[in-house]
Amino acid sequence: MKIGYLGAGAWGFALASLLAKNGHEVILWTIFPELVERLNSGKEHPSLKGFCAPKGLRLTTDLKQAVNGVDLLVESVTSAGLRDVLNQVKHIQAPTCPVVLTSKGIENDTGLTLTDVAEQVLGNGVKIGSLSGPSFAVDVVQGLPTSVVAASAQQEVMEMIVSVFANETFRVYTNPDIKGVSYGGALKNIIAIACGITEGLGFGMSARAALMTRGLHEMTKLALAAGGQKETLYGLSGMGDLCLTCNSTTSRNFQYGILLAQGASSDEAKKKIGMAVEGAYTAKSALQLSKRLGIAMPITEAVYNIVYQGKDPMSCARALMTRPLKDEF
Amino acid sequence: MKIGYLGAGAWGFALASLLAKNGHEVILWTIFPELVERLNSGKEHPSLKGFCAPKGLRLTTDLKQAVNGVDLLVESVTSAGLRDVLNQVKHIQAPTCPVVLTSKGIENDTGLTLTDVAEQVLGNGVKIGSLSGPSFAVDVVQGLPTSVVAASAQQEVMEMIVSVFANETFRVYTNPDIKGVSYGGALKNIIAIACGITEGLGFGMSARAALMTRGLHEMTKLALAAGGQKETLYGLSGMGDLCLTCNSTTSRNFQYGILLAQGASSDEAKKKIGMAVEGAYTAKSALQLSKRLGIAMPITEAVYNIVYQGKDPMSCARALMTRPLKDEF
Repeated sequence: MKIGYLGAGAWGFALASLLAKNGHEVILWTIFPELVERLNSGKEHPSLKGFCAPKGLRLTTDLKQAVNGVDLLVESVTSAGLRDVLNQVKHIQAPTCPVVLTSKGIENDTGLTLTDVAEQVLGNGVKIGSLSGPSFAVDVVQGLPTSVVAASAQQEVMEMIVSVFANETFRVYTNPDIKGVSYGGALKNIIAIACGITEGLGFGMSARAALMTRGLHEMTKLALAAGGQKETLYGLSGMGDLCLTCNSTTSRNFQYGILLAQGASSDEAKKKIGMAVEGAYTAKSALQLSKRLGIAMPITEAVYNIVYQGKDPMSCARALMTRPLKDEF
Repeated sequence: MKIGYLGAGAWGFALASLLAKNGHEVILWTIFPELVERLNSGKEHPSLKGFCAPKGLRLTTDLKQAVNGVDLLVESVTSAGLRDVLNQVKHIQAPTCPVVLTSKGIENDTGLTLTDVAEQVLGNGVKIGSLSGPSFAVDVVQGLPTSVVAASAQQEVMEMIVSVFANETFRVYTNPDIKGVSYGGALKNIIAIACGITEGLGFGMSARAALMTRGLHEMTKLALAAGGQKETLYGLSGMGDLCLTCNSTTSRNFQYGILLAQGASSDEAKKKIGMAVEGAYTAKSALQLSKRLGIAMPITEAVYNIVYQGKDPMSCARALMTRPLKDEF
């Protein structure tokens, strides 16, 4: 199958490599010409030491090549950049093939999930799916066991995702609840920032585990109110992804939280990280959405207050901990 | 309040110290005279470097002192040892005060939760509660933020647990679903062994996160069939405790799993750990119970096969990963 792929960060490169190793012809688009030159000449990816483009994977800065005549279009760009990239795609040619999203976020102001953004930009007729769940690029390029979930409102799109992505070590479950899958993947990044903050404040692992539990609780409430299914949030693209991101002390969102706790402003912390911090972007969208839907999200609100209002992390943590004690649910 | 406490391992000592610091008079019983002497003379606990018995906490090897005339009895002994200890307690005096269990396990052969064991031994009239959730002894002795759940069929027992244990950094939620709380706390140790095994086999964090997710899924199915509530398993004494134990690479169950993956027999691994490995004990009970209730628990069964049947960890992991792909739920 011929697959067009948008976005050659660590995650895009890892999944595009997987597809190429699965026997597909993959055209990977990026806006960075130096990355194209580097990877097309057989050098390793800058974020994945030791891993070069496999046979069947070719990079380009020409979006047309990744869009025209492909049987499947996959994207791994940033949440904030998705709408613009899809508009460019549409300008070339509205896709007739299925489009698979692997980015995780909620759009600021509109509150749309990325699959909703794709539908809005590309039109209702386009078949959209998403791939989500606990998966590090570094595990995928190494072929280490990984389980993810393919979501789509259309059974045939889920089956197509399974057939092109799955192999012996990359297990792809299906789940028709595309809303739940999208919210799970997006919201966990906010909780990962909160976990990084508690780490930076010197709290222990018990505090982190409680925060993850209460975090999943509020993620589930919002996802439910926004049309997702509870079960989904307790699955791979919710609990699973949360477990991975919140316990990876080297992940961007977690590191960003540590820096905030150490007194850095959001901008200073982002500059140090040097890559998109999806949780910071999504905290704003999630809080906007929670207010609109009337859902209390105390952890998300605390992260928002620290990131966007410059509130003191320790005071926010204390305020969370001194809420009245009550029944767990 | 005068509180009798049974079991002076790291967890018993940490909680007994917390109670003493909360202003209670605590008599902590252990069978080890050298531990009594050491702690009563102001030396640190052997498993909690730097932490000595606070004012208000006194140790004894005389069980009568911890049982007679107390307003509350708390225990932190091993799951396998609980029935015997409670029989000794009953022999002295059937408690008229509430009894709080903090051990986590399911009894072999009977399939009883520890609160059921306590009820069976002490009689139906005894008020029983349990304290569970993600909490490391080392966090509790340091006063680092920790959230747990108090469970009991009786509202007054839950309220009593909250009133004696809770303080500014030790948050105690309530949950009347004592069955769900007991199963959550017990079953997560099995999944922690499985996570240790994948670590020992060289799998990555993505595999671990997926295993935790699928693990919580089968924990929930069993707990539900045995009379617990789904919600509880997604709370502190389920998801929360699972997150803590499975991500603490230094925890006993996790370490035990690593040793198994490296080729050690169960006995060799236990000898190296030198403390009770609750997950190994509970894997047997859980598998027995799952067969009786007709619940498929593929991860628990794999752990059982490795621990009790000496099966090869890599073959078991492969078998788990090559199960047919399907819908997530």
